[in-house]
Amino acid sequence: METRIAWQTLQAFAAEVFGAVGMPAEDAQTEAEVLVWANLRGVDSHGVLRIPSYVRSVQEGGMNPRPNMVIERETPAVLLIEADHAFGPVVTTMAMQRAMAKARQVGVGWAVIRNTTHQGAMAYYALMAAQQDMLGLALVCNPPNMAPYGARAAGVHNSPLAIAAPAEEHPPLVLDMATSVAAFGKVSLAIDQGAPIPVSWALDAAGVPTTDASAASILLPAGGYKGSGLAMMFECMSSIMAANPLISTTLSGQAVRPGTQNSVVAAVDVATFTDPAAYRRDVDALIGAIKGLPPAEGFAEVLVPGEVENRVREERLAAGIPLPEGTVRNLREVAKELGVACPV
Amino acid sequence: METRIAWQTLQAFAAEVFGAVGMPAEDAQTEAEVLVWANLRGVDSHGVLRIPSYVRSVQEGGMNPRPNMVIERETPAVLLIEADHAFGPVVTTMAMQRAMAKARQVGVGWAVIRNTTHQGAMAYYALMAAQQDMLGLALVCNPPNMAPYGARAAGVHNSPLAIAAPAEEHPPLVLDMATSVAAFGKVSLAIDQGAPIPVSWALDAAGVPTTDASAASILLPAGGYKGSGLAMMFECMSSIMAANPLISTTLSGQAVRPGTQNSVVAAVDVATFTDPAAYRRDVDALIGAIKGLPPAEGFAEVLVPGEVENRVREERLAAGIPLPEGTVRNLREVAKELGVACPV
Repeated sequence: METRIAWQTLQAFAAEVFGAVGMPAEDAQTEAEVLVWANLRGVDSHGVLRIPSYVRSVQEGGMNPRPNMVIERETPAVLLIEADHAFGPVVTTMAMQRAMAKARQVGVGWAVIRNTTHQGAMAYYALMAAQQDMLGLALVCNPPNMAPYGARAAGVHNSPLAIAAPAEEHPPLVLDMATSVAAFGKVSLAIDQGAPIPVSWALDAAGVPTTDASAASILLPAGGYKGSGLAMMFECMSSIMAANPLISTTLSGQAVRPGTQNSVVAAVDVATFTDPAAYRRDVDALIGAIKGLPPAEGFAEVLVPGEVENRVREERLAAGIPLPEGTVRNLREVAKELGVACPV
Repeated sequence: METRIAWQTLQAFAAEVFGAVGMPAEDAQTEAEVLVWANLRGVDSHGVLRIPSYVRSVQEGGMNPRPNMVIERETPAVLLIEADHAFGPVVTTMAMQRAMAKARQVGVGWAVIRNTTHQGAMAYYALMAAQQDMLGLALVCNPPNMAPYGARAAGVHNSPLAIAAPAEEHPPLVLDMATSVAAFGKVSLAIDQGAPIPVSWALDAAGVPTTDASAASILLPAGGYKGSGLAMMFECMSSIMAANPLISTTLSGQAVRPGTQNSVVAAVDVATFTDPAAYRRDVDALIGAIKGLPPAEGFAEVLVPGEVENRVREERLAAGIPLPEGTVRNLREVAKELGVACPV
């Protein structure tokens, strides 16, 4: 049994919940928008099912509903932000706006964020740039949950990377990928379905490859040393650049405040390099050329990055967002606890 | 049978060859250095075995030994270079130097290069930045040789990406990865060995997965849609940003001058964000933490990006660079043709 709910209703509810845990109204709106945006695109693992854990995190001193965000360093092209454990979308939309303003002036804007928390779907930030005729980049690092290539223990995070570019007739191209073979969301789905997982996905707690989804404990990197190496370099680009290493500290047994992340968002302004209309048409031509290729055995068509999500969005904008029973139950509980009316 | 040759001798020879096809002495030195640097690190696919094909390319009007390189656009943070089909290392070292100078001033430098040609090992440029206490990034796009995820024909290039970061006790971390499961160099090696290739590596000319190395015609992307998506986004970052699309043009049957590439190199200055000495120590700590993990079944140790190549370099600096018989034969031929003394 699943319940369908209009995105506007769900978003208003989410904003009310975040207001109830102490966020200023505007920040609560931003957080709600980024979560429901993910639901609309079918990325339910990064949608409103996160609300109960966010509320708990606030209560336990993880996520900070009223952060004192400080821009510690700034040049015409870069900035370094101390996020004070702000909700990810609150600091990251601010960071990307500022990166874009810099890109508009000098062609590129590069923002490093220290001590953010869960940012939701990274594609959201990359798309902010694409919607303003810029290339958008976003990546994030957390404590380890993935085995580096050749290791039998967690040593890197399956850090995601998002890249977006504007098109004209087509929606922007937007890639959003974890550096693991599969994200934990897919493992959770297999658990719910009672299905086995491919042996390439994960190790159990003892570091042995497993097909038992419920035993999966440590993710495996996409492309072996490639996903593993990207994750390590992302730590160098974000956490270490922000003087807030998460991997070496965690592995050496030092405590890290729960939910801590570091991140980079960047924008490259198309107009600084070429005519934006021509750029968008060239991206259209790229999409057309790729989609015109003959599909492989077992594929009905060739898809480009973001295409599946855009189709789900069309459907859900019209028909509402489906919420599984478990999510509905959890949202009702959190609503009751906070004295907020639950629309489902 | 292989021949060992001191890197200095090989590099002097390479420079002489490039001088003989018309390159200015300084450019010939740069090109020779980048090739022999790859050989020293064991990346022989990007070393001096390329010399005969470069010479042919010059003779056939592909690579340009005396290019008129023009900086078409420039801000304090970015530049766009028309390379006029310069030898890749000539324009790319210049581009990275300028990107680094910008990064020193404003924290980030981002260079887009139009109409370069084969750049050698991309790690070289990322490391230039790491050696100056900067993060280095380098990527490149060429016409299609890889099937996008879900396609049975070539539609993207297996575009490589290199990222480097400085360390203190350890050499810099440097990742250099193609977006395909395996590069063509590994397929060539399997052909030479008469060995089959894994079915995940390549399609034959008809678009069917093959284990026959000599039938391999189209590479397959690493991580399915991930490698495929990265390659598409790299085209948006380099070729389309430079108003010189290579994928849509090639797929629509338009002629592209042989050997044409577009590229991005970028540098992020550590000192703009944090203390470089602390940064390098944190990268050391990351390396130490990763290497301290228990190895997986079948692995003697956990390796970090660039580590294998650094070990080969130590050995080859001392013992010389081994050249297989075929390479020696080809170098002798090209030396004879150009009237250059061949040291092997």
